[in-house]
Amino acid sequence: MNFKVIGKIIGKIMILEGIMMLAPFIVSLIYREEVRYIISFIIPSLLLIIGGFLLQLLKPKTTSLYQKEGFAVCALVWLVMTIFGALPFVINKDIPNYIDAVFETMSGFTTTGASIVTDVTKLAKSTLFWRSFTHWIGGMGILVFILIFIPESNDGSSLHLLKAESPGPSVGKLASKMKVTTRILYLIYLGLSILEVIILLFMPARIVNGVTYKMDLFQSLLTTFGSAGTGGFGFVANSMEFFSGATQYVIATFLILFGMNFSLYYLILIGKAKEAFKSEELRTYLIIIVVAVILVTCNIANKYQTVEEAFRHAYFQVASIMTTTGYTTTNYDFIWPSLAKYILIILMILGAMAGSTGGGIKVSRFIIAIKGSFNKIKKLINPHHVTKSKFEGKALDEATTNDVFSFIVMYFFIAFLVILILSCDPYTESEVVIAGKTVEHGFVSNFTATISCLSNIGPGLEAVGPYGSFAHYGIISKITLTLAMLIGRLEILPVLILFNPKTWHK
Amino acid sequence: MNFKVIGKIIGKIMILEGIMMLAPFIVSLIYREEVRYIISFIIPSLLLIIGGFLLQLLKPKTTSLYQKEGFAVCALVWLVMTIFGALPFVINKDIPNYIDAVFETMSGFTTTGASIVTDVTKLAKSTLFWRSFTHWIGGMGILVFILIFIPESNDGSSLHLLKAESPGPSVGKLASKMKVTTRILYLIYLGLSILEVIILLFMPARIVNGVTYKMDLFQSLLTTFGSAGTGGFGFVANSMEFFSGATQYVIATFLILFGMNFSLYYLILIGKAKEAFKSEELRTYLIIIVVAVILVTCNIANKYQTVEEAFRHAYFQVASIMTTTGYTTTNYDFIWPSLAKYILIILMILGAMAGSTGGGIKVSRFIIAIKGSFNKIKKLINPHHVTKSKFEGKALDEATTNDVFSFIVMYFFIAFLVILILSCDPYTESEVVIAGKTVEHGFVSNFTATISCLSNIGPGLEAVGPYGSFAHYGIISKITLTLAMLIGRLEILPVLILFNPKTWHK
Repeated sequence: MNFKVIGKIIGKIMILEGIMMLAPFIVSLIYREEVRYIISFIIPSLLLIIGGFLLQLLKPKTTSLYQKEGFAVCALVWLVMTIFGALPFVINKDIPNYIDAVFETMSGFTTTGASIVTDVTKLAKSTLFWRSFTHWIGGMGILVFILIFIPESNDGSSLHLLKAESPGPSVGKLASKMKVTTRILYLIYLGLSILEVIILLFMPARIVNGVTYKMDLFQSLLTTFGSAGTGGFGFVANSMEFFSGATQYVIATFLILFGMNFSLYYLILIGKAKEAFKSEELRTYLIIIVVAVILVTCNIANKYQTVEEAFRHAYFQVASIMTTTGYTTTNYDFIWPSLAKYILIILMILGAMAGSTGGGIKVSRFIIAIKGSFNKIKKLINPHHVTKSKFEGKALDEATTNDVFSFIVMYFFIAFLVILILSCDPYTESEVVIAGKTVEHGFVSNFTATISCLSNIGPGLEAVGPYGSFAHYGIISKITLTLAMLIGRLEILPVLILFNPKTWHK
Repeated sequence: MNFKVIGKIIGKIMILEGIMMLAPFIVSLIYREEVRYIISFIIPSLLLIIGGFLLQLLKPKTTSLYQKEGFAVCALVWLVMTIFGALPFVINKDIPNYIDAVFETMSGFTTTGASIVTDVTKLAKSTLFWRSFTHWIGGMGILVFILIFIPESNDGSSLHLLKAESPGPSVGKLASKMKVTTRILYLIYLGLSILEVIILLFMPARIVNGVTYKMDLFQSLLTTFGSAGTGGFGFVANSMEFFSGATQYVIATFLILFGMNFSLYYLILIGKAKEAFKSEELRTYLIIIVVAVILVTCNIANKYQTVEEAFRHAYFQVASIMTTTGYTTTNYDFIWPSLAKYILIILMILGAMAGSTGGGIKVSRFIIAIKGSFNKIKKLINPHHVTKSKFEGKALDEATTNDVFSFIVMYFFIAFLVILILSCDPYTESEVVIAGKTVEHGFVSNFTATISCLSNIGPGLEAVGPYGSFAHYGIISKITLTLAMLIGRLEILPVLILFNPKTWHK
C-alpha cells in the first residue's frame, strides 16, 4: 500500500475542502451572523488548509496506485471530507451532536438529502448554505473535482480513482480522454447550474395574497445546489411546497435534466445531438418518467382540487424521486394512495441515468438486467442460438451482464442487512407524531429509510416521510445509514474494499 | 413441438390425479357427507381418468423431448392439475367461485398454503382432506411422482422434466441415477410422513380443562400433509394455535426435517451420514434457524407469560416460515415487535434447502451469492489472484454463480411487478377488520402477499397476516398471485418458457 501517495491525495482534498468552506464563511459575514458562526467555518477551514499542506511534505517514491488502492482511496476521500465537513455544524451548535452532523454532512456530499434537522428554519443562513453547497460539490463527484484542478498524475492512478467514483456500469469513452472530458463535464454542470440560478431569480417564486415574491440570490443558489446535485436538502418549511406552481415546474424539469447522463450533453455540444437522442438509456429513462407521471396523476387526481395540481405534484415527485433528489411539493405519504406511493418506491430503487448526479441502481443497469434475463430464457428455448442482444448499439457481453446481476444482488443484500440493523433500534417500536398525525415506526419506515439512503434520495415513507426526519434514530442506526449513503454513492465496491482488512496488507 | 408426446404425458397426469381424487371421495363416504360432496369428487375423477386414457391413444412418432419442451410441459402439467383439481370445490360449493378454487388448488399443489377461505370450520371434511392432500402430492413434485410410476422413457425426456421441477440450483448426482434415486427419495418422504402421522396420533394434542385429547387419524393425516409438503393449509380455527405446546414442538421439528435436502437422508440411509453432516447448506440452514430463534425469542420474550411460551412460538414460526410452510401458533402480526416480524420477512425470501419440499430463494443460492460477491471484491483487490472458492467441497464455477445472481434478480423483478399489479387492486385502498382490529391494506400487505406466494409460504403480514386471508383481492390480483405461486414453485424459468410464444413455434 502506497501510504505516502494516499496521504498526498488526502492532503489535496483537505486543502480544497478548506477553500470551499470559505464560501459559508463569507455568507456568515454578509448576513452579520454571531461570532460562533463565523469561527465555525474559518477555524476548520484553516485546519484543513494547514493540515493539507503539511501532508504535501510527504515524499512518495512512486506516484502510482493499484486499482484496489484507487477504490479504497476513493471511499477514504469521501470519509475524510465528511469528517471535517461536519465540524462547522458542531462548532456553531446548529447540530450539536457530532454523529448527527456527520450524518447530515454525508447526506450532503452523497447528495442524499436525508436530514436529522426537524426544523430547518432554525438554522443560520451560513449553515444552510454549507449544507446545500455540499450537495453541489458531491453531485459531480469529489474526485472529478480534484482531477480538474490537480491533473498531474498521468499514470492511470487518476483513472482508478475516477472509475471508483463514476456512477453507472461503465465509464466508457469518458475515461480514455479523461482530462479534457471531465473538465467539459464540469463546465456543463456549472453551465446548467448557472442557468437554473438565473431562471429561478426571475420566476414568480411565491404568490401570497395577490403579491408576487421572487427568490433572492440566496434562495435561488440553495435551490440550485440541491437540484443540480440531485440532493434535496430544503431550506424553507416543507421543502418546495413553499414555492409557486410555476417554480415547481421549472425545478422538476431541471431535476430531470440533471438526472441525465452528462456525456449526452457533451455529445450535443460537439454536434452529435442525433447520437445523443438515440441513447437507449435516455429513451427508457424518459418513458419511465412519462408512464409513472400518467399512472400517478390518475391515481391521485381525486385528492387535489384540480387536475393540474394533481399532475404538477405527480410530475414533481416522480422527477424528484427518480432522479434521487428528494425535494417534495406535497405530503405524498399522507395524501397519496398505495399505488402512487408504491410507484415512488420502485423509482427509488431504480434511480436516474448512469453518469448523472443521481443515485439508485441506474436505468442502464435495469435495461441490462432485463435483457440478460431474456437471454437466459432464449438460451433455454434454443441452446444453439447465439443471442446477439445489444445495449447502446454495442453487443452486450456476458461479463457486463453478470456484473450488473451481481451489483443488483449486492444492493438488495446490503439493503436487507441495513433494515435488520434499523429494526434492532429501540426507536423502531415507538410512535412518531408527524404534522399532527401519529405514525407507527415499523417496517415501512425502516425499509424506505434504507432504500432512501442507499439510493441517495432523502425522504421515504411514514416516520421518514416528506414531513418526517431521521432525527430519532439511535446512534448505531445513524452510523449505519451514513455508511449506506456512501455505499450507494460509490456504488458498493469502493466502500467494501476500504473496510476489507486485506486491502491494507502488503 | 412434439404435441403428441405432450398429450400423452398430460393424459398420464390426468389419470393419476383422477385416482388420487378417489381419496377425498372415500373420505366423503366415510363421513356420510351430502350427495353434492360425493359427486364433487367422483365426477371429476371419472372425467380425468377417461380423458387421460383417451389421450393415451395418441401415437407419437418419437418419444423424445427437447429441453425447452421439458420446461414448458412441466409448467403445463402443474396448470392442468390445478385446473381439474379445482373442480370439486366448485361442484360442492365449498368454494363456489372458480377463480377462487383455482387459487386455492394452486396454493395447495405448490405447497403455498395461502387461502381465500375465511373460515375453514365451514368446509366439509372431504374438502379439507383434498385441500391438504394437494400439499402432500405437490410437496415432492408432481412429475417426480409420475416418473416413479411410469418410468418408461429412457431418452433424457424424463431428465428434462425433472430438471425443470427440482428446487435448487442443481440436481447434481440425483439426475444421473434418476430412476432408482427418485423412488428412494419418495420412500423417504413417505416414511417420514408415516412417522409424523404415528407420533401425532399418540401425542397429547390438546388439553382442555385438565382433559387430554388426542388427534384422530383425520387430523393427524391433514397435519402431516401440510407439514410434509411444507404447505400449511389449516383445518381448525387459528391453524396450529389449536394444539398443545408439545404437539407444536413436534410439528415444528418435522417442518425443519422436511425443509432439508432429501438427498441428505439418502446419504444417511446408504451409510454416509458423515458426508451428509458435512453439507455446507445444511450447516448454514441450521445456523440460520438457531440465530433466528434466539433473536426472535429475545425480541418477543416480554409479550408472553413465560419464556418457554415465547421460545416455543419463536421456534415454531421460524421453522414454519423458513421451511415456507405457513402454519402458525400465534398472531405474530399483532403481537410481535418489528424486529421479529422483519426476521420472518427475511426468512420468507430466503426459504428452505434446495432439494427439499420448501420454497424461496433457497439457502444454497444464498451461500453461492454471498461467496460470489466476496469473489468480486477479492478480484478487485488482487486481479491476478485466482479465487478458489468452493461450495459443498466442489469448486464454485462462474457459470453457477452467475445463474444464481440472475435467478435472484429475476425473483426480485417478478416480485416488484406482482406488487405493482396488487397495488392497482381497488382492495388495496380499503381497510380490513381482522380479529376485531382494523388493519390498513397497503404496501406491507401487498409486499408480504407477493413474497408469500412467490416463496410458497402462505401467510404474510397485515391484511394477509396469520388471521387474515386472500379472499378480498380482486380477480386480476388472484390470477396474478396464482401464477406467482407456480413461478415460485417451479423456480421461475419453466413458467416463463411456457408463456413465451416462441416456445410453441416450429
